[in-house]
Amino acid sequence: MDNDTDIPVTVIGLGLMGQALAGAFLKAGHPTTVWNRTTSKAERLVAEGARLAPTAGDALQAGSLTIICLTDHQAVQEVLDATEVDGTTLVNLTSGSSAQAREAARWAERRGARYLDGAIMAVPPAIGTAEAVILHSGPRPVFDAHEPALGALGTVVHLGGDPGLASLYDVAGLAMMWNVLNAWLHGTALLGTAGVDAATYAPFAQQIATVVAGWLPGYAEQIDRGAYPAEVSALETDARAMAHLVEESEAAGVDTGLPKLIKAMADRSIAAGHGAEQYPVLIDEFRTPTHKKINDRDTPEP
Amino acid sequence: MDNDTDIPVTVIGLGLMGQALAGAFLKAGHPTTVWNRTTSKAERLVAEGARLAPTAGDALQAGSLTIICLTDHQAVQEVLDATEVDGTTLVNLTSGSSAQAREAARWAERRGARYLDGAIMAVPPAIGTAEAVILHSGPRPVFDAHEPALGALGTVVHLGGDPGLASLYDVAGLAMMWNVLNAWLHGTALLGTAGVDAATYAPFAQQIATVVAGWLPGYAEQIDRGAYPAEVSALETDARAMAHLVEESEAAGVDTGLPKLIKAMADRSIAAGHGAEQYPVLIDEFRTPTHKKINDRDTPEP
Repeated sequence: MDNDTDIPVTVIGLGLMGQALAGAFLKAGHPTTVWNRTTSKAERLVAEGARLAPTAGDALQAGSLTIICLTDHQAVQEVLDATEVDGTTLVNLTSGSSAQAREAARWAERRGARYLDGAIMAVPPAIGTAEAVILHSGPRPVFDAHEPALGALGTVVHLGGDPGLASLYDVAGLAMMWNVLNAWLHGTALLGTAGVDAATYAPFAQQIATVVAGWLPGYAEQIDRGAYPAEVSALETDARAMAHLVEESEAAGVDTGLPKLIKAMADRSIAAGHGAEQYPVLIDEFRTPTHKKINDRDTPEP
Repeated sequence: MDNDTDIPVTVIGLGLMGQALAGAFLKAGHPTTVWNRTTSKAERLVAEGARLAPTAGDALQAGSLTIICLTDHQAVQEVLDATEVDGTTLVNLTSGSSAQAREAARWAERRGARYLDGAIMAVPPAIGTAEAVILHSGPRPVFDAHEPALGALGTVVHLGGDPGLASLYDVAGLAMMWNVLNAWLHGTALLGTAGVDAATYAPFAQQIATVVAGWLPGYAEQIDRGAYPAEVSALETDARAMAHLVEESEAAGVDTGLPKLIKAMADRSIAAGHGAEQYPVLIDEFRTPTHKKINDRDTPEP
């Protein structure tokens, strides 16, 4: 494994996250070159052993692997457009959309560079620990070749060849995060009106979320089969309980936006004839924008 | 423990759930009396050893504990109004609101009955196993006295003296369930547009939900303290990522209702000055109906 930590790496962009990435490489023993438009941000890293490159082009040539972590894809283009990238391997961990990732991958290919897109599902202090999950997408052989070095940054995952996947998984995972938090906040607000404090309710919410999360792989089979038999319960039973949630929320004087959205999606699916099927049949409501369903209910879905 | 299973119990209401409850008592060895308006529903239970009471009043007198599981609170009133309940212990597992539960508790107290309200967080086939969580609220001593018998039905929990708590925890827990499922469905729809099947995405969604659920007890402390320092990240950082979720959803042509609701709640909190605080500060948005906040932003919250 000594060989792996001999691999020279480069980090371009030294915001809080870029500094954490370079710091993790240094800690793992990699010869680490850094570059940032504002050179003062490199000072701490240089004190820890990093080499500050005079130009982005010089930095790119120093590493067998270059991590790019800038503010946005626009900044990435500004830095790379004027730079020779032929023969380099770029791992772009800059936040951006799946469309931007695919465009950057095409640009890199035209310019002769190997390209992976990535998304960091962690805060800077977690970088360098197993808790920091870093998603990658793009050519599998490129990921495989550099996985040992990338592993210094956290738990690294390859999602598939489409360079847009890292961004898509990232926002999908964040949507899960916000939904769990929002459901918990709604329950906390509701129970707060009956004098239950947040600490009392939290373990209950945690347990429900964990149990339901365990259902997802089984429910996914229904979606992939496109068949939703009501093995456990029917959507119309859920909808009746959703009405209770709306009523309790109204009676308690808490916000009803979230309960009403939940119920509206189920009501639309029931109106489309799916009341006797199981919850995952709602995937059709998520797959198609509401305005399209309303205007054009009979058009087969793509 | 033989003593506990000698306790005679009664079940009123023999829908699918009532039958499952009576069946679990019989299996645990309790002398079990049942009553239902339509007596044919008792046939299977009688074959298993239950006694069918000729009237609801007779059934109530037979058990030292009576489980009521009818269609709704209206049906409960119709059965009990004409019946002597003085000296009995009623555990009402009929679905209903917290207000109905509190009203039923007051009614029972006036009539000389001990009363617990409950909510069953399980489907009928799970009754009698540890997986069936049954929530109870009302006087603690009544719960304690009957916990051994109630334990034949599943994992029984006492939430507090307010008889409305079981209904409130029930809908709050269901809100968590629907939110986890909806976030997963949204992610599945989004990733489906990039050719990722549901089975591939599900374990990722499961992991995120489980990890985030683990944060809730810690976040609850912020709510109970009423202080939301951005220890891990600031709400305005979340809001920028929420904009990405909305954009990716729009670009993929999936429904944007859920992402837009998530972002709108964060935007309102940021507009109220909370952008530099941590996510749980959003509790204020959940605690107060939106129309009230918009009409009356400066009124202190209760």
